[in-house]
Amino acid sequence: MKRLVLFVLFVLSKMVASAKSFDQSSRPIGGRLEAFSLSYCLSWRLAVETNNIKGWRTVPVQCLHHVEAYMIGGQYDSDLNLIVDQINNYIDRITLSDDGLDAWILDVDDTCLSNIFYYKGKRFGVDPYDPQAFKEWALRGICPAIPSILRLFLKLVENGFKVFLITGRDETTFAQPTLHNLHFQGFFGFERLILRSEAHKGQSGMVYKSEIRRKLLEEEGFRIWGNVGDQWSDLHGQFLANATFKLPNPMYFVP
Amino acid sequence: MKRLVLFVLFVLSKMVASAKSFDQSSRPIGGRLEAFSLSYCLSWRLAVETNNIKGWRTVPVQCLHHVEAYMIGGQYDSDLNLIVDQINNYIDRITLSDDGLDAWILDVDDTCLSNIFYYKGKRFGVDPYDPQAFKEWALRGICPAIPSILRLFLKLVENGFKVFLITGRDETTFAQPTLHNLHFQGFFGFERLILRSEAHKGQSGMVYKSEIRRKLLEEEGFRIWGNVGDQWSDLHGQFLANATFKLPNPMYFVP
Repeated sequence: MKRLVLFVLFVLSKMVASAKSFDQSSRPIGGRLEAFSLSYCLSWRLAVETNNIKGWRTVPVQCLHHVEAYMIGGQYDSDLNLIVDQINNYIDRITLSDDGLDAWILDVDDTCLSNIFYYKGKRFGVDPYDPQAFKEWALRGICPAIPSILRLFLKLVENGFKVFLITGRDETTFAQPTLHNLHFQGFFGFERLILRSEAHKGQSGMVYKSEIRRKLLEEEGFRIWGNVGDQWSDLHGQFLANATFKLPNPMYFVP
Repeated sequence: MKRLVLFVLFVLSKMVASAKSFDQSSRPIGGRLEAFSLSYCLSWRLAVETNNIKGWRTVPVQCLHHVEAYMIGGQYDSDLNLIVDQINNYIDRITLSDDGLDAWILDVDDTCLSNIFYYKGKRFGVDPYDPQAFKEWALRGICPAIPSILRLFLKLVENGFKVFLITGRDETTFAQPTLHNLHFQGFFGFERLILRSEAHKGQSGMVYKSEIRRKLLEEEGFRIWGNVGDQWSDLHGQFLANATFKLPNPMYFVP
């Protein structure tokens, strides 16, 4: 009977140890390392999102699991939902005129359409940018819509905004698959899909998109009420929108 | 003996249950609520830091413990350290001229000096702004330095930058206590402490600080290499610095 008691004690002590491993402090070495890594990756991601780190090429390898968990574990979706709530509040305060010149800009990649499936194969940005592989992915035209942004898009169209989708994707290569992809995912009713033409080849996203906004504002007379993108280069530069909204993207940086 | 086994089983099952409570999923209701609250507060804080939420007046009450844990639990310090590392990388690439016109701007409140002790008494920003209480706090001149920013400041001075400390604090009331506070905390060698004079009373932080930068740039001929602040209104507007760095502050918003 004494041996039975000892056996029960042994089994249950293992259960306690295993259950306790949820608490970092019970793993003096691994736990501290993990806590340091989490703390570093949280700081890295915040610095990326606030544009304090610019021109970064790859996600730090120690943040692979952090970025993966962020992108597919629900927090990315939560972050998008809260931003779209803010955008909706802003939209509801706008009175549109009847001249048809109230415009709104949305970026395409990782704004309207998600590349998470592609980046899963690139270790969520730990692997360096692979233009050939990305080209093959984008040509397939199977990027899923980002649900919260699709809802925003449909509201903008319904409210009477002229919605311009502006992408850095090359016009010659990607015009048709991108259009098909957008339609297939439910993006109907936008005013124009603007891709990078020959004239803008080699320009940074910021310079190219500033020039597109200049044309919309100065040549066509639009009022750009809002601009939404996952890159600061979508939003910064010249000829800015009245309001800009930065969506999270810890997987890659576009200058 | 059988009763002894049952007793041991009972005690150890309690230990397992208690240890298991580290895992959210074992608390079906409280755990889910807490997870929702954490997710919401993470989204709220990211949206504040990326300037997607503007003009907010108080921290959402359900985020009190989240903001408190963030500010005093180590993550805020980690975030600051990583930003200062980025700033140091930038500084190390700058070649200063010998005309004495290489300038750098630092904000004061929650950039050089910390108000965490004060905001602890205001539930980390859940309570609304209390100008009289803040005045009394600031007049005491006992704000501690933010260590990472003090180190940055000393490096800037040593490297030969003319460092301008620009604060929205009222000049008549706060000039002396602020100067004493800065000196007492080790901020020696700055070029000028600029407080809000009569001419800028009632202006937003952004308008007031843009005008100060205009004077430095246009009237005095300085090159403003960098600008560091905890509010977007420190950094945005006109006459921008060559590089800006946004420090975190989820406790209050200054327009």
